[in-house]
Amino acid sequence: MSHSVVNLAEKALRIQDTWSPRVVAQMNDVQFKLVRVEGPFVWHAHDDTDEAFLVLEGALEIELPGSSVQLGPGELFVVPRGTRHRPVAHAPCLLMLVEPRGVVNTGDTGGEKTAENDRWI
Amino acid sequence: MSHSVVNLAEKALRIQDTWSPRVVAQMNDVQFKLVRVEGPFVWHAHDDTDEAFLVLEGALEIELPGSSVQLGPGELFVVPRGTRHRPVAHAPCLLMLVEPRGVVNTGDTGGEKTAENDRWI
Repeated sequence: MSHSVVNLAEKALRIQDTWSPRVVAQMNDVQFKLVRVEGPFVWHAHDDTDEAFLVLEGALEIELPGSSVQLGPGELFVVPRGTRHRPVAHAPCLLMLVEPRGVVNTGDTGGEKTAENDRWI
Repeated sequence: MSHSVVNLAEKALRIQDTWSPRVVAQMNDVQFKLVRVEGPFVWHAHDDTDEAFLVLEGALEIELPGSSVQLGPGELFVVPRGTRHRPVAHAPCLLMLVEPRGVVNTGDTGGEKTAENDRWI
């Protein structure tokens, strides 16, 4: 855990891969994670926690049961706990996730897109 | 509490006053608050929680015991719980605070800059 100033753009330059969140800061038990995404993710839910998405670059669609939301830069959306969702980036997108430490990116679904957790940059 | 898309710039347009945080979203018990700041705040601490500052526009100095940090747009800093600090904006600045619901802006110091809490826009 670091208490230095975190420049989000500088941190993002160090991320090349997609769907692999990197922790950049922590506030109590809540982590701030940067992640590049592109294409469709997997449908999943987090039964124990809400999950906040803030788009920094690009655009993200979050599919929800029966609907979807569209996020552009500077737009924030909170997926309520237990709500199934599927992020889909139709073009490259840089996100900041804000969620408790220990949340697995694929939630209850798992599979090959499951990323290593608690990975700091 | 709202689970719609939050456009931070649109929300910020509705804030004219300074040092009065407005809640725009909540993730579990953690609130995302927008606040305009200008000039010096009061020295204070939050004994029970860390506090995350993300500068959206302008610049912020956070004075700490014996040091200070400088934040520009897209820079994030977490003040550890119990650490005395004084935010100082040498020019108008727009911040996003991320902290648990119920945190009082002036912490243990109180006084005339104490803002109404849990005020949503």
